[in-house]
Amino acid sequence: MRRLAVVVFNGASLGAMSFAFGVFEMASAFGELPDLDLKVVGGEPGTALRGGGLTVPVPEDLDAVRNADLVLVPNWRSPMEDPPEAALAALRAAHDRGARVAGLCSGAFVLAAAGLLDGRPATTHWAMAPLLAARFPAVRLDESVLYIDDGDILTAGGGAAGMDLGLHLIRSWCGAEVANRLAKGMVVPPHRPGGQAQYIESPMPELDEGDPVSETMAWALTRLDTALPVDELARRAHMSRRNYDRRFREITGAAPGTWLTHQRVIRAQQLLESTDLPVDEIARYCGFSSSAALRPHFRRQVGVTPVSYRETFGTRLGVPEPMLS
Amino acid sequence: MRRLAVVVFNGASLGAMSFAFGVFEMASAFGELPDLDLKVVGGEPGTALRGGGLTVPVPEDLDAVRNADLVLVPNWRSPMEDPPEAALAALRAAHDRGARVAGLCSGAFVLAAAGLLDGRPATTHWAMAPLLAARFPAVRLDESVLYIDDGDILTAGGGAAGMDLGLHLIRSWCGAEVANRLAKGMVVPPHRPGGQAQYIESPMPELDEGDPVSETMAWALTRLDTALPVDELARRAHMSRRNYDRRFREITGAAPGTWLTHQRVIRAQQLLESTDLPVDEIARYCGFSSSAALRPHFRRQVGVTPVSYRETFGTRLGVPEPMLS
Repeated sequence: MRRLAVVVFNGASLGAMSFAFGVFEMASAFGELPDLDLKVVGGEPGTALRGGGLTVPVPEDLDAVRNADLVLVPNWRSPMEDPPEAALAALRAAHDRGARVAGLCSGAFVLAAAGLLDGRPATTHWAMAPLLAARFPAVRLDESVLYIDDGDILTAGGGAAGMDLGLHLIRSWCGAEVANRLAKGMVVPPHRPGGQAQYIESPMPELDEGDPVSETMAWALTRLDTALPVDELARRAHMSRRNYDRRFREITGAAPGTWLTHQRVIRAQQLLESTDLPVDEIARYCGFSSSAALRPHFRRQVGVTPVSYRETFGTRLGVPEPMLS
Repeated sequence: MRRLAVVVFNGASLGAMSFAFGVFEMASAFGELPDLDLKVVGGEPGTALRGGGLTVPVPEDLDAVRNADLVLVPNWRSPMEDPPEAALAALRAAHDRGARVAGLCSGAFVLAAAGLLDGRPATTHWAMAPLLAARFPAVRLDESVLYIDDGDILTAGGGAAGMDLGLHLIRSWCGAEVANRLAKGMVVPPHRPGGQAQYIESPMPELDEGDPVSETMAWALTRLDTALPVDELARRAHMSRRNYDRRFREITGAAPGTWLTHQRVIRAQQLLESTDLPVDEIARYCGFSSSAALRPHFRRQVGVTPVSYRETFGTRLGVPEPMLS
């Protein structure tokens, strides 16, 4: 018997349940996990799932949490709110008993609040990663991956990354062939190349108007097609290179050269998404000599190649749409 | 006001709801569809969703179906069972009123039973495509794509292909930028390259032992690395080439050469999934002179390149797993 408890909290979305436990339900339907006892339980009194006009009461059942072999927490309603202490205690009790505990998407905040992620590698929804890092600095956060299996503690990125973790668990229990067959049955890829990094939205950095270093950053963003030597940026800010670098790090957390490359790659992402310009031309617009020069930086930051990124995220390209008219 | 009715039938899986309407719920949560009225309704008396130990009653509401602007049927419990006539009548009434009607996964069987797919291009879950073709021969079925937008009638392939269709609808309503932002928020690709074809499981063909043509097919399957001229196969069956071709077509629905190429590509898929042999070597094991010779056939049949297929479905390759240990 493999006891799996899926802990939901009040207001959780009915439309997110595939990401939470769809893979396991499908595995059962395929007869692959005959010993699975899958139970969705409320993590607090008065829990209800909501969606599509339905309200689905889910009774609190912390005993099921304490006695599970694997506890999944698919989400948490607000990164700034403390989860109920009774649920945290039940998670800790399960973990102490030897259960594996998994936090998907915003559910990682519940594990973090229980102290289970201290000093551990973990991930969460990319949009909430800065908040998690700020609230729980002891977590070794990596938002670039789809999931992390750290043995007794597992975490997944946002939304559908929960399915990737689910398939990973099925793979470890039943083998890769079964996981592949299930994935094909659900019409999802058993392995997604490139991790969560490619899904991260990169907003324009917020720059402080009065600050001379911020001003050079804003200036640089309008000239990403040029070389932008850091010495020149320091000169524009009327600062020594050493002071400029120090102040730059205070603002961005990165060295100027690193930040500039990061911004060049973000610009390339935007152009790949919104234009049908050749990749070589895009590379030059972003200050790289060619697509070959762009490629390794793009791959390191985004997790996939520029061509593959455009294939997935391009909105202007004449991609062969799977549509008849 | 955009009225969207999601029609579920008794026993529908709670764990499939993201595929059914998760995209629309997420769009609402993002504030992108302020005028959306999304309602999950029962398509028959006594409907309940089930999953994770929960039973969720969903009241029958065929008025909501009749008055919707878009009706989504996410699944149907059995390809061999006739859907309830009242639901079919409500679907037809909605369609007559000018509503768009969409069938996802096995839900396409409901649209077909309502007569809405006659003479129309449509898709369904790849595993059920042969059954749909047999029961509803007037449907112009294409199982290779993730979804088909034929204007008033829409269909999606299995499981997660429902999300691809959902994102397509959001794209048509709100633009590609909004669809991209939503997809990133759900950590799903806004465009999936390659369609449903790459997810199709290809079982060994069932061959009739006593039949001489079937015997040559079985023999050929053990020698896919060789040239296999059809004249030689006919000779082995002690038949004229013309009779052999005719009998072959009766059994497989295809000409011998077409069938052989199909089997060679299936073999290549299997080797890409289960071995880490170089693609050139795999190509030769399957009777192609090189990976360059394999590539166009593979791409036509599977929808993606051999390298991309291995990246997604390979189980033996030392792919960089998104895991720390």
